[in-house]
Amino acid sequence: MEFNEINERDAAELGAIVAPQRISCGESSCALHSKDQSSHRAYVPGAVIWPLSAEEVAKIVSYACDRLMPVTAWGMGSSLEGNPIPVCGGIVLDFSMMNRVLAIRHEDFQADLEPGVIYQDLNETLRHQGLFFPPDPGARATIGGMIGNNASGSRTVRYGATRDHIMRLKVVLADGEIIEIGNRASKSSSGYDLVHIFVGSEGTLGIVVEATVKLTPIPAEFSAAVASFPSAEEAASAVFGIRRAGLDPVALEFLSPECMELVSREQGISIASGPAVFAEFAGPSASYLAETVAYAEEICRENGSLKYEAGIGRDRRDKLFRARHSLGEMIIRSHPDRKIMTTDVAVPISMFPSMIAFADAESRKTSLPRYLFSHAGDGNIHLVVLGRKDRESEIRTVEELNSRIVMKAIELGGTATGEHGVGIGKRIFMEREHGKSLEWMRRIKGLFDPKGILNPGKIFP
Amino acid sequence: MEFNEINERDAAELGAIVAPQRISCGESSCALHSKDQSSHRAYVPGAVIWPLSAEEVAKIVSYACDRLMPVTAWGMGSSLEGNPIPVCGGIVLDFSMMNRVLAIRHEDFQADLEPGVIYQDLNETLRHQGLFFPPDPGARATIGGMIGNNASGSRTVRYGATRDHIMRLKVVLADGEIIEIGNRASKSSSGYDLVHIFVGSEGTLGIVVEATVKLTPIPAEFSAAVASFPSAEEAASAVFGIRRAGLDPVALEFLSPECMELVSREQGISIASGPAVFAEFAGPSASYLAETVAYAEEICRENGSLKYEAGIGRDRRDKLFRARHSLGEMIIRSHPDRKIMTTDVAVPISMFPSMIAFADAESRKTSLPRYLFSHAGDGNIHLVVLGRKDRESEIRTVEELNSRIVMKAIELGGTATGEHGVGIGKRIFMEREHGKSLEWMRRIKGLFDPKGILNPGKIFP
Repeated sequence: MEFNEINERDAAELGAIVAPQRISCGESSCALHSKDQSSHRAYVPGAVIWPLSAEEVAKIVSYACDRLMPVTAWGMGSSLEGNPIPVCGGIVLDFSMMNRVLAIRHEDFQADLEPGVIYQDLNETLRHQGLFFPPDPGARATIGGMIGNNASGSRTVRYGATRDHIMRLKVVLADGEIIEIGNRASKSSSGYDLVHIFVGSEGTLGIVVEATVKLTPIPAEFSAAVASFPSAEEAASAVFGIRRAGLDPVALEFLSPECMELVSREQGISIASGPAVFAEFAGPSASYLAETVAYAEEICRENGSLKYEAGIGRDRRDKLFRARHSLGEMIIRSHPDRKIMTTDVAVPISMFPSMIAFADAESRKTSLPRYLFSHAGDGNIHLVVLGRKDRESEIRTVEELNSRIVMKAIELGGTATGEHGVGIGKRIFMEREHGKSLEWMRRIKGLFDPKGILNPGKIFP
Repeated sequence: MEFNEINERDAAELGAIVAPQRISCGESSCALHSKDQSSHRAYVPGAVIWPLSAEEVAKIVSYACDRLMPVTAWGMGSSLEGNPIPVCGGIVLDFSMMNRVLAIRHEDFQADLEPGVIYQDLNETLRHQGLFFPPDPGARATIGGMIGNNASGSRTVRYGATRDHIMRLKVVLADGEIIEIGNRASKSSSGYDLVHIFVGSEGTLGIVVEATVKLTPIPAEFSAAVASFPSAEEAASAVFGIRRAGLDPVALEFLSPECMELVSREQGISIASGPAVFAEFAGPSASYLAETVAYAEEICRENGSLKYEAGIGRDRRDKLFRARHSLGEMIIRSHPDRKIMTTDVAVPISMFPSMIAFADAESRKTSLPRYLFSHAGDGNIHLVVLGRKDRESEIRTVEELNSRIVMKAIELGGTATGEHGVGIGKRIFMEREHGKSLEWMRRIKGLFDPKGILNPGKIFP
């Protein structure tokens, strides 16, 4: 696809749509919007625009459509697969100024949000109403970015992904048309489900400018436990056992010894060394929780756990979660000379022990620094293996390893990406994962964005 | 659209694809597939075919595509909005012989099913494994029909609709191509969500020939309660109160006095007269449930309840549920000379009291027999008002009433159909409900079924 670059006249006209101070073609703004948290290479956009309203977005997209310029939506740039990198240049729409909570309808368990709202800030606002928005990718992500990516995280094992929490969207389409889809009723069988075509489409079909999200009551009681195991496989079996027993944890995470060491070194949290499972339970009463935690301990012991620390309170739980959420950053900081590549496969939970064993064994063969962690309750595995940036052979080794792991996950009935999205890095696996249905995704792309201006270069190989 | 009728040669060729005994152009077979449980008029198909495999379905659809013949999928004919009525004739595919449970993967909480599996039979099979498939439309519906309609029911307030339980589909498209979409991992961010385009599309985009559904552990303990109220509005307020308190019932139903009388007369179940709320709770322990039920009682009392019967055991609960599920049939039997018309609106739960008050007041004005019942916890309202079949003015009155109720629901942020689907009867409201996005549904239809052979005459006005 041949796109036009943004010239001075475009910049002036786009500036007239918004306001001159809300567009920048300057080097530093453009550089700040040239890459996300992944190791994919940077591409500098022609302009960054900070819209304030759906109407502004519509006008900008309409202009870009006429002039054949790429438009890429930008939340916080916290994604991990290059999803918002403007690989064909053009306009980046930064939604940080469209960050109003338009309404909290606590009586309907719903909130109307602009895409720039950061989910942690929303949850802070909701806390005193006893409600929260459950998907938690960890990084300070925006609702718009989470919708684009169908983000999920530690709480997805119980509450589902972003997909499961979106009721209604206002979307700007590729020619600038604004449509509203979905409704506020808790269920509907009225026509085709357009909402879920957009969730997870990484801004390639339309740009979300407003969302009604579903909220959930905060459970009355929490209790967490950490168990350590002699091997990754035994830890994985315990995870499977906890799921199989129907204990319905609100978090069920796996951490390899390397991760445990890093957490203990960087955050001063002392937990047993060795592969560990972190489980959190929530429920209506302390006695119910005590039962559940004891049952989980039994399952861990049966699977050979060496240590089981139960009754972890809220403070230590929060500390552990923060540590878990900043693992990615800690790894980057610890290896400044190395390229970070994170696998993100997910498999059916019964396949989790074999997938962990496979990832563990294959990554060991490389002798490179490695960190294995996982939203284990969902069968979602992140393996970080680090090759030196200047050693081509190491980078190739890492890429081949990632490829083997993805192929294995697909073979086991799983997916190339559990939560990071396809972005740039997973495109090569789409054919393998989706077969002939990939062609139907292409046709849907062609239907909604015939000129291909919306976030080009993503999802499709 | 001009379609071709099925001639003798077509019948012979189609018979050669399946087997001569699995196609019928006979009057009685065709008449049996000419209408569902609604009052929409019958249309007789040209042939009924009972396929045995995805490949047979693909060959039939491919033949129909070439010869420009309509193809309509048929589960049990239990739908309530004319959804499978072959209004343009052609082929009806009856899936009753494609009813194998292909696999139950209890360790993954999943089952692979052919579309003709009846959900109650599946749940009977699953019972001893402590698992179930939660959506429960009540009638003996097939999984294929439930997917087509995004069916839901009494348990949706807790567990969601069919949409929330479909992980993977095998679909025959309009030209006979077979695609597989989705995967078996519990989450994925891999490309566009094709699965949810098909769920609820009423067989107009493709024909589901296999589905992987999500299963749920059966809760350990149940407890039900019935409360009666002086007015429908007070009952509705109690429903809202129970939802608002986060009590998370597994069923929360509303029944008008007319329904209570009918149930008591026909089924010999004596419950307090007056508008009633039936609530069911489930949880891990009896003590937790006792607390919940007591809290629900408090809420009902605050909303003026006259009687509150708690601690209803499993037998009486099952009896009540069966009565609730057969309400529709009981109403038809009680009024053989009248046409049945059922509204199916859903509104945000905060709007439920005003929607109930509106439906109650408007229907009273007609002086026709009326029954108001509701999956109240979802804000989903069914109002049955019965005009005499031979009195045109009464039929018109009923239609106008339905129209006013639908318009009101949409105005309140709700939907024309909570669970029955658009079918024939709700088409006229699609423009009002979806606005410009209806055009995008049309385009998706055009993309997947350019000749319009799949279940023509449905969804679109």
